[in-house]
Amino acid sequence: ARSYNITLLPGDGIGPEVVAVAKDVLSLAGALEGVELRFQEKLMGGSALDATGVPLPDETLAAARDSEAVLLGAIGGYKWDNNEKHLKPETGLLQLRAGLRVFANLRPAAVLPQLVDASTLKKEVAEGVDIMVVRELTGGIYFGKPRGFETNDNGEETGFNTEVYSASEIDRIARVAFEVARKRRGKLCSVDKANVLEASMLWRRRVTALSSEFPDIELSHMYVDNASMQLVRNPKQFDTIVTNNIFGDILSDEASMITGSIGMLPSASVGESGPGLFEPIHGSAPDIAGQDKANPLATILSAAMLLRYGLGEENAAKRIEAAVTETLNQGFRTGDIYSPGTTLVGCKRMGEEVLKTV
Amino acid sequence: ARSYNITLLPGDGIGPEVVAVAKDVLSLAGALEGVELRFQEKLMGGSALDATGVPLPDETLAAARDSEAVLLGAIGGYKWDNNEKHLKPETGLLQLRAGLRVFANLRPAAVLPQLVDASTLKKEVAEGVDIMVVRELTGGIYFGKPRGFETNDNGEETGFNTEVYSASEIDRIARVAFEVARKRRGKLCSVDKANVLEASMLWRRRVTALSSEFPDIELSHMYVDNASMQLVRNPKQFDTIVTNNIFGDILSDEASMITGSIGMLPSASVGESGPGLFEPIHGSAPDIAGQDKANPLATILSAAMLLRYGLGEENAAKRIEAAVTETLNQGFRTGDIYSPGTTLVGCKRMGEEVLKTV
Ligand SMILES: CC(C)[C@H](C(=O)O)[C@@H](O)C(=O)O
Ligand SMILES: CC(C)[C@H](C(=O)O)[C@@H](O)C(=O)O
Repeated sequence: ARSYNITLLPGDGIGPEVVAVAKDVLSLAGALEGVELRFQEKLMGGSALDATGVPLPDETLAAARDSEAVLLGAIGGYKWDNNEKHLKPETGLLQLRAGLRVFANLRPAAVLPQLVDASTLKKEVAEGVDIMVVRELTGGIYFGKPRGFETNDNGEETGFNTEVYSASEIDRIARVAFEVARKRRGKLCSVDKANVLEASMLWRRRVTALSSEFPDIELSHMYVDNASMQLVRNPKQFDTIVTNNIFGDILSDEASMITGSIGMLPSASVGESGPGLFEPIHGSAPDIAGQDKANPLATILSAAMLLRYGLGEENAAKRIEAAVTETLNQGFRTGDIYSPGTTLVGCKRMGEEVLKTV
Repeated sequence: ARSYNITLLPGDGIGPEVVAVAKDVLSLAGALEGVELRFQEKLMGGSALDATGVPLPDETLAAARDSEAVLLGAIGGYKWDNNEKHLKPETGLLQLRAGLRVFANLRPAAVLPQLVDASTLKKEVAEGVDIMVVRELTGGIYFGKPRGFETNDNGEETGFNTEVYSASEIDRIARVAFEVARKRRGKLCSVDKANVLEASMLWRRRVTALSSEFPDIELSHMYVDNASMQLVRNPKQFDTIVTNNIFGDILSDEASMITGSIGMLPSASVGESGPGLFEPIHGSAPDIAGQDKANPLATILSAAMLLRYGLGEENAAKRIEAAVTETLNQGFRTGDIYSPGTTLVGCKRMGEEVLKTV
């Protein structure tokens, strides 16, 4: 039997609850397809800070690197919000992404027919939306140097960051995006601010040059301000979007909210080789942590992405996705996606229902 | 009679059409309130590029500086899209903002009861939305240095920009925002990415410190990725938003589209002293230019903002706003806001109808 080592990083807030459920689903789906999954659990985020003083202990990064895929729950919470930068849970996440070199973040945002009413957009605008945002994840302004605080010539304090992209950083994310678009509807929209920023001008130039290698893909370009409008105006115009780290952060979250059900949305972060990082897009929701109220489906669907993009186990991935669809069809809903006429369940029960149909 | 010099910058595409209409409305509203407005028209944007080789001729900037307010139509078009950066129409706009030192951009986004159906959001989500985005306009990554292209240590080309804010730049925009919030519903949400960026950490620190001067204002903070979600999820939660240049660019456009009628939305850019810059938020729409199809209401409402924020002529401003409301109530609509049962009119005719009711 094929066997893989998976690192679980439950993290903070609702993270442990949703990861526990997803782990069971992952195990079962794997077993049914003849795949053995071995799990190790490590500390990460605020819980790592409390236990070890740092948000990403060396041991966690080493274990993650040595495994074949990483499943993360969620990190952060009010408790650590005012920590200094190097002691923020978020810093641990950035370090993990950099440490695993997962430069491509895949963020699907599809409106499920069962949940179309959850969108705040009119039904005719929301239904059928199926977007994949490919966000560059280990470059740009979140990592660029120089950065910091400095006293300027007027003796005033300044805070500064550097947005920087190299040709090869752009090429490799663009290549992933062209390939993703090829497996979808063949349309790629590259988002930048090339009318103002040099980093975006290089971005547009490289993406355009690369498009000659993908003559079957219809490439377009859009300014980021316009993209944030168009997602609201007519999200169906988009198939695959590729953009830099910060624009991707903003637009992928906007696209997610258009589906109306962020408790459903998974993500995959992959590199050229080595383990990928798979996580739900929702946060740690400290206000409902420990109450068995969280929606585990985003983490379960992240586990499906882990099987597909991390391990190449397409059959097991499809099994999980089909089970989620079936469970929704049966009417089970956690609080965040509940509507009258459906059956309200907690986190664990939702997991059990998915397990039954895997 | 009070008299003022106004610089008109019609610009490109539909700019000349909408400015011509707004000029007549401005004149009449002024005259009826005992205010004499003297106009001078100057070149700007693509039309300036074609005529003089630069997007903002010195003469235009000097005239704008010497006047008491500037009304701009729209700039840009496909023709100049591939120009080098210093020869882009957009560069002229950035130079104009910097030259007039208009660091505070006020971007109202209100859903008008007559046009609530224009929003792609469900009626119950859209109705009553009334947001003011206060965007920092002359700092941050659009202006920060160093910027440019460089070969890195691997011999690869890079493109880079600098996001930088000084304490006083943050304080002055925050002050404007607190004051705007005070004239509205007393709620201010400051948007940043303080969990990652140093420039945002300083931003949050300064805004928080300043809030002690405005104890009557309820201040909150939100990360930009969350803000882009929350605008879609529940835009009514926002009153006044204050944020940096690039986040403001993205979020103000998103907020605008939530109203569903960007052909209606004005903007004001003001500094500490000197003339303000007033412009509709829509672009130059080259595809409909010269066809008398453009919606002049955004420019007319920008003229109202010019009277209010630029000249302190509140009565004349109100006259224009009331006339626009009345014209909408009478059922007149340009193509972009047309719905069955209303009367479709062109740009000029819309202007005439507003003139009748001023
Ligand atoms: C927590 C933060 C660093 C992170 C980011 O912005 O990358 C988060 O918003 C995300 O999108 O995963
Ligand atoms: C044209 C461009 C430079 C400008 C900006 O981003 O500031 C525009 O998008 C705007 O918002 O007025």
